Amino acid sequence: MVCVYDSGVGGVSTLMALRRLVPTVDVCYLGDTARVPYGPRDAATVCRYATEALDYLAALRPEAILVACGTVSTVALPHLRGRYPLPVYGVAEAGIRAAAALGARRLAVLGTEATVRSGIFARRLSECLPSAEVRSVACPLFVALAEAGLTAPDDPLPRLVAERTLAPLFDLEPEAILLACTHFPWLSPHVRRLFPTAHLIDCGAAAAAALAPTLGERGRGECRFLVTDGSEAFRRLYGRLTGDAAPPLVETVALS
Amino acid sequence: MVCVYDSGVGGVSTLMALRRLVPTVDVCYLGDTARVPYGPRDAATVCRYATEALDYLAALRPEAILVACGTVSTVALPHLRGRYPLPVYGVAEAGIRAAAALGARRLAVLGTEATVRSGIFARRLSECLPSAEVRSVACPLFVALAEAGLTAPDDPLPRLVAERTLAPLFDLEPEAILLACTHFPWLSPHVRRLFPTAHLIDCGAAAAAALAPTLGERGRGECRFLVTDGSEAFRRLYGRLTGDAAPPLVETVALS
Repeated sequence: MVCVYDSGVGGVSTLMALRRLVPTVDVCYLGDTARVPYGPRDAATVCRYATEALDYLAALRPEAILVACGTVSTVALPHLRGRYPLPVYGVAEAGIRAAAALGARRLAVLGTEATVRSGIFARRLSECLPSAEVRSVACPLFVALAEAGLTAPDDPLPRLVAERTLAPLFDLEPEAILLACTHFPWLSPHVRRLFPTAHLIDCGAAAAAALAPTLGERGRGECRFLVTDGSEAFRRLYGRLTGDAAPPLVETVALS
Repeated sequence: MVCVYDSGVGGVSTLMALRRLVPTVDVCYLGDTARVPYGPRDAATVCRYATEALDYLAALRPEAILVACGTVSTVALPHLRGRYPLPVYGVAEAGIRAAAALGARRLAVLGTEATVRSGIFARRLSECLPSAEVRSVACPLFVALAEAGLTAPDDPLPRLVAERTLAPLFDLEPEAILLACTHFPWLSPHVRRLFPTAHLIDCGAAAAAALAPTLGERGRGECRFLVTDGSEAFRRLYGRLTGDAAPPLVETVALS
């Protein structure tokens, strides 16, 4: 069994990528919906929330934990990995490796405020690709749109938000765009419309691809969902985002 | 000294209303920025967060507490008021009284998801104004826009969000619109543009008006700001929303 952890519903995009690769894997998904969004918060607060969540999940004795939250994997995971006697995968490292493999010369990083403020993506990308131009943009409203289920490709609202938020990238003409927050793949049609030739890197899918080959055990493809608040709202939103006709049972748990 | 409590920066609109009425009052403002927004969360979670915040503030021994959060004053305050040996004012009751005094026949309530889901505004308004038509609309993106400082009257983004969110009210032609969340006064120009003849009721300002005449002591008009996360971000946002050239010192405190 693998645990997938995100602040909210964003990591469901990563969960879906993992299940496409390994349909038989059993997964326990945790969304810390009582405290979403993590992105605008200070690093110390994100570390505290992440520690509580990972302690909870580690106690379930999974084969591995996939941190499907760009903010946690950027600002907290480097400090927390040694705390757990099991592999903990983050979306940041996987996304950076995927970008480096592409060898793009002009790169954009779309993240939360905390991710962009940390500068970690930009720094690591510049180490891997010293001659590349890297520009980071914080997209806090993308999270609000995804959590509200307002992501449809023909909806003018996410279209306008994408145009406004990504305007600082127009003159860069990025060859690759890292979606460094797992909420953002839900908005990828709107990003793609503005940058039709850029390669979009879904950091969550990249992390799922890194984890998949390491999985020894196989299960029955079962999926358990835990949230810290709003189990009914999570069910509805899960159905709306994934198009799944039978949204799953969702349990509420306490982390703090 | 009076305490003003909100989930984030929204209650600053209430604080400003109170200081316009009583410039000499000393205020301690608490924004639970580590857990904002409260609006999408379950009532039990909101009650837990509110209890922690009010316990903290009551220990400061203020003359009164003004709960400048529509969600808390709707779903938590009725259960919590007896817990404290001092007056606790909520924005919900004040807004409902102001609407009742107007005698409007068609009323709209703009609130968070939790406020609208509770049905409390609609029920209380129908009790006060039995022949009035009342319609409630949840405006979760208004909170995200205010917390991102994206509220300017000439900005097309909040304009489009307002048009989309308030479309269910167009055929009602409301005579009065209750801004039942203290984040919403920041967006009132966008509400007014869509409903130019409606009377906008700022529930926070109504609560400040109820509290002001009861204040016995007078201070020096000092204001202390406490947040649970992101003191620098709060300072910047405070300056951006209020136009105050000298944003205040902001302290970080722990509630949980």
